[in-house]
Amino acid sequence: MASSDQPADPQCLVVDIHTHMYPPPYINLLKSRTTVPYIRAFADDPAGLRLVILPGEDSPANPSTSRGRPVGPEYWDVAQKIAFMDRHHIRTSVLSLANPWLDFVDDEAAAVEMAVRVNDWFEETCARYAGRLYAFAVLPMKAGVAAIQAEIQRLKGLQWIRGVVMGTTGRGDGLDDPGFLRVWQTLAETSTITFLHPHYGLPSDLYGLQNANYGHVLPLALGFPLETTIAITRMILAGVFSDLPDLKVLIAHSGGALPFLAGRIQSCIEHDSHLKKAGHKPINILEILSRNIYLDAVIYSDIGLRTATQAVPQGRVLFGTDHPFFPPLEGESKWPSVQTNVDAILKGLETSDAHRVLGTNAIELLNLTT
Amino acid sequence: MASSDQPADPQCLVVDIHTHMYPPPYINLLKSRTTVPYIRAFADDPAGLRLVILPGEDSPANPSTSRGRPVGPEYWDVAQKIAFMDRHHIRTSVLSLANPWLDFVDDEAAAVEMAVRVNDWFEETCARYAGRLYAFAVLPMKAGVAAIQAEIQRLKGLQWIRGVVMGTTGRGDGLDDPGFLRVWQTLAETSTITFLHPHYGLPSDLYGLQNANYGHVLPLALGFPLETTIAITRMILAGVFSDLPDLKVLIAHSGGALPFLAGRIQSCIEHDSHLKKAGHKPINILEILSRNIYLDAVIYSDIGLRTATQAVPQGRVLFGTDHPFFPPLEGESKWPSVQTNVDAILKGLETSDAHRVLGTNAIELLNLTT
Repeated sequence: MASSDQPADPQCLVVDIHTHMYPPPYINLLKSRTTVPYIRAFADDPAGLRLVILPGEDSPANPSTSRGRPVGPEYWDVAQKIAFMDRHHIRTSVLSLANPWLDFVDDEAAAVEMAVRVNDWFEETCARYAGRLYAFAVLPMKAGVAAIQAEIQRLKGLQWIRGVVMGTTGRGDGLDDPGFLRVWQTLAETSTITFLHPHYGLPSDLYGLQNANYGHVLPLALGFPLETTIAITRMILAGVFSDLPDLKVLIAHSGGALPFLAGRIQSCIEHDSHLKKAGHKPINILEILSRNIYLDAVIYSDIGLRTATQAVPQGRVLFGTDHPFFPPLEGESKWPSVQTNVDAILKGLETSDAHRVLGTNAIELLNLTT
Repeated sequence: MASSDQPADPQCLVVDIHTHMYPPPYINLLKSRTTVPYIRAFADDPAGLRLVILPGEDSPANPSTSRGRPVGPEYWDVAQKIAFMDRHHIRTSVLSLANPWLDFVDDEAAAVEMAVRVNDWFEETCARYAGRLYAFAVLPMKAGVAAIQAEIQRLKGLQWIRGVVMGTTGRGDGLDDPGFLRVWQTLAETSTITFLHPHYGLPSDLYGLQNANYGHVLPLALGFPLETTIAITRMILAGVFSDLPDLKVLIAHSGGALPFLAGRIQSCIEHDSHLKKAGHKPINILEILSRNIYLDAVIYSDIGLRTATQAVPQGRVLFGTDHPFFPPLEGESKWPSVQTNVDAILKGLETSDAHRVLGTNAIELLNLTT
């Protein structure tokens, strides 16, 4: 185990598979809007653009979140992404559109058009930085299933796309919606890995009267991973992974809480009298974890990181940064949010395993040429 | 590491700190009610009493949960508790009233009277089985703070009480309610350990359209631990543990998801610009975990169990069964839900550590004479 104060081992290629951008056409879409999600400035700081994306984030009832977060070129300028990568010794990044993707674009034609524009922007941008950038593409989730399937098929012709990024609501009724199974089928048939990422969190009344003092802590620290855990468990219960043994899902934030709670979920399934009476097909979460699930390493502790690496087979946990979210508050050039995850990997694992998580796993899984 | 097929090591005293009862006066209270929580029979099975306790559990929209669960003497007959203990080689149990405790008893006098009746029943019952039974007491949560404090003080005179059991809503506004801090103060001053247990879960619309097919899986497997995680994180953010460094909280179900998510919570706190601007007192979750937090071992996997034991200092993880919930569906005499947790401990830890979790830790922490 090594200290993160040392320069990164030159033998270790670092790959970041959890790193976001908003391409310019998407930024313009957010700037054109006046309801969440949107980008705007406020009268007392006309030059300071703010990104407000989370459900209910702009509620006047919660002044501690209502102006969202600063947004600048780190979200849309690829040169800043490369500079960030260089600063953190990241050889290659697999970019993804940040939440809420195209979930809010209800018009079918507009959703399809923006998906193509965003995905083509990622394709062209990655081509300009060959070996340093790849991307997960976005899908027009509120278009019809056929339109979603068509975009999945089109992506197979794009050289730098390595999968798709997706939120937890699917077309609106969740990832366990029987009507969504055809999308999962197409993803499985085309060997397209899905990067599952939260956005919607939990209802803010769960956070209590004092939440207005807590800033973004509860929606981000808990809302995000707990939302993810519910979404993937619903997929498990619906039998999506039983129907599609080849489906590959890469879960953000080390799986929400799935690696820790998998045993409890399994036990509750086995002890549920309704499922038994209904003749529910047996579910084996250990098998699903070993066959279908990949996890990023964005968990911010060596304890959590070890749990993640124990929950899935070797080779299935992949380093990520969540850039450009969680920027340094003290102006540090090396981002503490990134270093925390690097440290967790180096402290939590033997060196060879750490190097796999930091880069080799992603290179092999996503067939990257670095 | 040993196999659970062997008889328990005679050198290992097993103590169960997560095991519930509904004393007869409380059963009568539930039988007298027609809204959740209640006990009733249905016309097609007039002899079969059913326990319906969870919020919204009896909604006709979810026939897979609407009749709750069977309830019989395993909930109120101490002889059945002892028989269960003998069957699983459990030397000593620390009983607690099951959820929802007295949270729904809004009348102050009624809440205080029932708290005294329940706690005195536990005291007398434990005295009859000296060395085999202890108990966590219940508090009249909807009575005034003074009434709650008075009961905490009264408990110090009861020989077999080893702490209190509590849900996540406190007096209604949560455990981070500033008005509740005086209760935490009294618990800390009297060195009364609090067994924090979920009940309320999450709003059922988070579980999707197919939830009606999923039985109790989502509310129990996820709703419970996620509720717990939110409640304890709110306490952390409110500074309860900073104000009361001596406060001891034993968290059900191995802490919800706290052991896995602690790093993310810490990182989100450190990266929150509102908390920084507001001059929020620094929060060190590792310190809180090492000083204030105890976890049961009810996590149903060796991976989760190891995570729990790594998150808190040695001596702070304690075996539990959750009896009489999660009974065998196939009529097994040894309960699989119990064996899964025993196996997780034996598989996840070295033998000496496993024995500590199975019994010694509880004996030392709760000062039990077995």
